[in-house]
Amino acid sequence: MEGLVLHEDPKSGNCYKVRLTAAHLRLPLERRFYDIMKGETRTPEFLATVNANGRIPVLQVGGRFIPESNAACHYLAAGSDLIPEDPFDHADMLRWMFWEQYNHEPNVATLRFWLAYIGEDDLSETQRLLLPSKREAGEAALGLMDGHLAERSFFVADRFGLADIALYAYTHVAYMGGFDLAAYPAITGWMDRVASVPGHIVMD
Amino acid sequence: MEGLVLHEDPKSGNCYKVRLTAAHLRLPLERRFYDIMKGETRTPEFLATVNANGRIPVLQVGGRFIPESNAACHYLAAGSDLIPEDPFDHADMLRWMFWEQYNHEPNVATLRFWLAYIGEDDLSETQRLLLPSKREAGEAALGLMDGHLAERSFFVADRFGLADIALYAYTHVAYMGGFDLAAYPAITGWMDRVASVPGHIVMD
Repeated sequence: MEGLVLHEDPKSGNCYKVRLTAAHLRLPLERRFYDIMKGETRTPEFLATVNANGRIPVLQVGGRFIPESNAACHYLAAGSDLIPEDPFDHADMLRWMFWEQYNHEPNVATLRFWLAYIGEDDLSETQRLLLPSKREAGEAALGLMDGHLAERSFFVADRFGLADIALYAYTHVAYMGGFDLAAYPAITGWMDRVASVPGHIVMD
Repeated sequence: MEGLVLHEDPKSGNCYKVRLTAAHLRLPLERRFYDIMKGETRTPEFLATVNANGRIPVLQVGGRFIPESNAACHYLAAGSDLIPEDPFDHADMLRWMFWEQYNHEPNVATLRFWLAYIGEDDLSETQRLLLPSKREAGEAALGLMDGHLAERSFFVADRFGLADIALYAYTHVAYMGGFDLAAYPAITGWMDRVASVPGHIVMD
């Protein structure tokens, strides 16, 4: 694969997923940086050319663009060991990736963004009101992961793959959102296994 | 494919996606019904055997289970015309399906659930506070779809497929959440095209 450009903000776990996938596949990625705190992904130019949805990451492939982190990871990993060949296992992998975007990211990643980047004092009234429910939903997501991992080394088919990458990204920095991962021993064991797979890179 | 059972609530657009996919593929699905309003997907038995996440739809394949609507659709459609063979188009399809779960469903489907099933008078204080931001995000999601469809017949590679099914499910009942689709002519044209693809079935 040539001409791969990642439009990203290094603060974002969603962007790190794409970099981590590329690292495992030894694919070179040109990195183009935006600061989401300064609205750099909402400029008219960005909206017109990179992503009308105003979000990063976006993977650029030649002159075409793939928004949505998990879709970009899937593109890079197509045909590799990171995606199971068995149809049930492939669907099971996607299941965890959809679950990550629906149940995990909006809670675990959002609290990290609110508390570590915006700062509790600067939250809006609505954000402040949502803190307890996001905390509860985030803990529930981590609890579900912990239960699943109690009996397995990795999320799908007992081998490292895209579901692990997708879930590792925001889980390993969940402490920045006030989540105490010591309460989830199966998660911490899995994080160690993920970080020791050859090819692993850390988040900037 | 044999032994397919859909654990579902007919009120749910996420469940309808799986039925619609199966209908286009002429795959028989046994339907097993739950009432989410009565908490029937949160019983200890459901959590222990069908989905620890307490949600429907879940596609049962023999003795195994696939939660997450879009993962279940992907399982059913693997190898069919509903999923493009080209790797970029496949990723682009997944992009729209991830976008649906992150940007569309939590706004367009949630307002439908809140207003048409719970009822505005019975909303919690937090839900009431979130109405304007969910409305705004839902309109933004519909606007993005409309812009994309202004130049295309279907979402990906200009042919009907899983991305259309995933996005049709809650879009075509968005009026129940107070969204006026007359403001989105490219969406209404696309909905007509989706509904006239042979094999189409309506939501219960």
